[in-house]
Amino acid sequence: MADSTFGLVVHGGAGVILRQDLTLELEAEYHTQLEASLAAGYGVLEHGGASLEAVVAAIKVMEDSPLFNAGHGAVMNAEGVCELDASIMDGLTLDAGAVAGLQHIRNPIALARDVLERTPHVMLIGDGAEAFARQVGYEFVPNEYFQTERRRRQLALARELEAKPGGHRPAGRKERVTFATVDDNKFGTVGCAALDRKGNLAAGTSTGGMTNKQYGRVGDSPIIGAGTYARNATCALSATGHGEFFIRSVLGHNVSALMEYKGLPLAEAAGEALRQLEELGGTGGLVAIDRLGHVAMPFNTPGMYRGCRVAGQAPVVEIFGAEYRAQTIRS
Amino acid sequence: MADSTFGLVVHGGAGVILRQDLTLELEAEYHTQLEASLAAGYGVLEHGGASLEAVVAAIKVMEDSPLFNAGHGAVMNAEGVCELDASIMDGLTLDAGAVAGLQHIRNPIALARDVLERTPHVMLIGDGAEAFARQVGYEFVPNEYFQTERRRRQLALARELEAKPGGHRPAGRKERVTFATVDDNKFGTVGCAALDRKGNLAAGTSTGGMTNKQYGRVGDSPIIGAGTYARNATCALSATGHGEFFIRSVLGHNVSALMEYKGLPLAEAAGEALRQLEELGGTGGLVAIDRLGHVAMPFNTPGMYRGCRVAGQAPVVEIFGAEYRAQTIRS
Repeated sequence: MADSTFGLVVHGGAGVILRQDLTLELEAEYHTQLEASLAAGYGVLEHGGASLEAVVAAIKVMEDSPLFNAGHGAVMNAEGVCELDASIMDGLTLDAGAVAGLQHIRNPIALARDVLERTPHVMLIGDGAEAFARQVGYEFVPNEYFQTERRRRQLALARELEAKPGGHRPAGRKERVTFATVDDNKFGTVGCAALDRKGNLAAGTSTGGMTNKQYGRVGDSPIIGAGTYARNATCALSATGHGEFFIRSVLGHNVSALMEYKGLPLAEAAGEALRQLEELGGTGGLVAIDRLGHVAMPFNTPGMYRGCRVAGQAPVVEIFGAEYRAQTIRS
Repeated sequence: MADSTFGLVVHGGAGVILRQDLTLELEAEYHTQLEASLAAGYGVLEHGGASLEAVVAAIKVMEDSPLFNAGHGAVMNAEGVCELDASIMDGLTLDAGAVAGLQHIRNPIALARDVLERTPHVMLIGDGAEAFARQVGYEFVPNEYFQTERRRRQLALARELEAKPGGHRPAGRKERVTFATVDDNKFGTVGCAALDRKGNLAAGTSTGGMTNKQYGRVGDSPIIGAGTYARNATCALSATGHGEFFIRSVLGHNVSALMEYKGLPLAEAAGEALRQLEELGGTGGLVAIDRLGHVAMPFNTPGMYRGCRVAGQAPVVEIFGAEYRAQTIRS
């Protein structure tokens, strides 16, 4: 399988992302960052590096950018603190690493990878995850490193909406959740799926979760089989959106199972899994790549920050989705 | 679907459970507790109660018993603290609740159910999960409530083994994990899957994890799609074993996908999913029930505490598995 095709696909979140809400300048910045993320991952793959390595490289770029809801620039929870989750999976070995509830680790995706490679475990949470980080020599950053003025304003807005009649959230029924809890309806999780020259797939996801989320809430990003999944026989993918629905529909493994057990090609499997998610009421999207280098980037929201670069093809970076409904199999 | 068949299946963990290691008295106690768990769940179903209710009732009995690794009698982590995880899923709505890293909640399965019913979230971890418990009026118990003399001895033994040359664990490669970390090779997670008279399926799982586990380590029990899964169209199931492998193989959803997408009957799907888990190197088992009341209880370890009771059939409670290999599709 040496020197077969290779490539990667990235996302920076899906949601109500409308052209009229973005200045041309901000739109250009998103393009620049998505291109930088693709370039970082592609560089690894081009030089024969492993897909796992490319996934970490691509995601780190987005974690370090204030534009995305991961690492620096992550959204704040109801206590005004950034809590970070990430996961990564190796499609060759089906080995995986995940972390949740981090408050002091600059690049959560790097720690997820160290959980994969340096512990017998898959998932470490909270103080325990940070104790492991300390043990393997991570530098700790203050929580303020992640916090930005933009996210502070979003939290203030979410709290304001929550205080309005009918907008109160704690311990209410699920129906009572307000959009104030979902990052003013824009999600910004980041992720990457990659295929390397050896034919190995890998995927990873990193997030700050939802603005004003309940302290301790974990979404789909650190859940193997939900927000992240990779399997050489089928595909590698990373999801973004309203995480609870992605957990309940086990979206990542569902795409893979639709390919493996029903024989669907990647694009159809991804579309069908998204349709099932939509049936539950879920919104969001995913990026995926299969072992032949086919790419899928379906979403059922107005926009998704996304891009892909496959060897021999022009790189693609897109934000809006005029035909976003047509990208699911609903068309 | 009113007054169709109904029933439930429970487990109290799988592992190296050998007849020669159990006194007749202890064996009888396990039988008594498994029967009590079945009776509690069956009582709910018989009176027309919901499968979700039956799952909670059956699991609470095992959480309250010191015999099992859940609630009172949970194993201790490397710091000598009991950390509890649980999850539950409703096969009708695909709604789910999960908690991880609890230290003061008597019945984790009850809190998982409250996350399902009373929050917009699926998963809450650590202090955040306990803050939610406080908010909805849970009584807090000291961590000592969960700790038993038997588990203290197991922890001491695990630490002793770890201190031996070659047995050192922290930050080592996955290959270096010793059996000292896996409850001296006996797992004791508890779980239940149930079918009610309305044809609705539900499943739940509760655990203390692994003896001497790294602080913050989360296994498959609170992961929807791994240790717990329920879907009216296919089956409900709860898994037990070396959790990392169950997460990596997304075991719960895999059984369901094999039924839905490949058309396999429950027993074959459960066997095939277990075979795939075994290929990764995983050991353990699962209990499952489908919407027709068919039950499967496969495992690839010498024993699994298990039982089932389906309307119109004699209740079954078993521990050992002379023919345990034959119960997977390897036979």
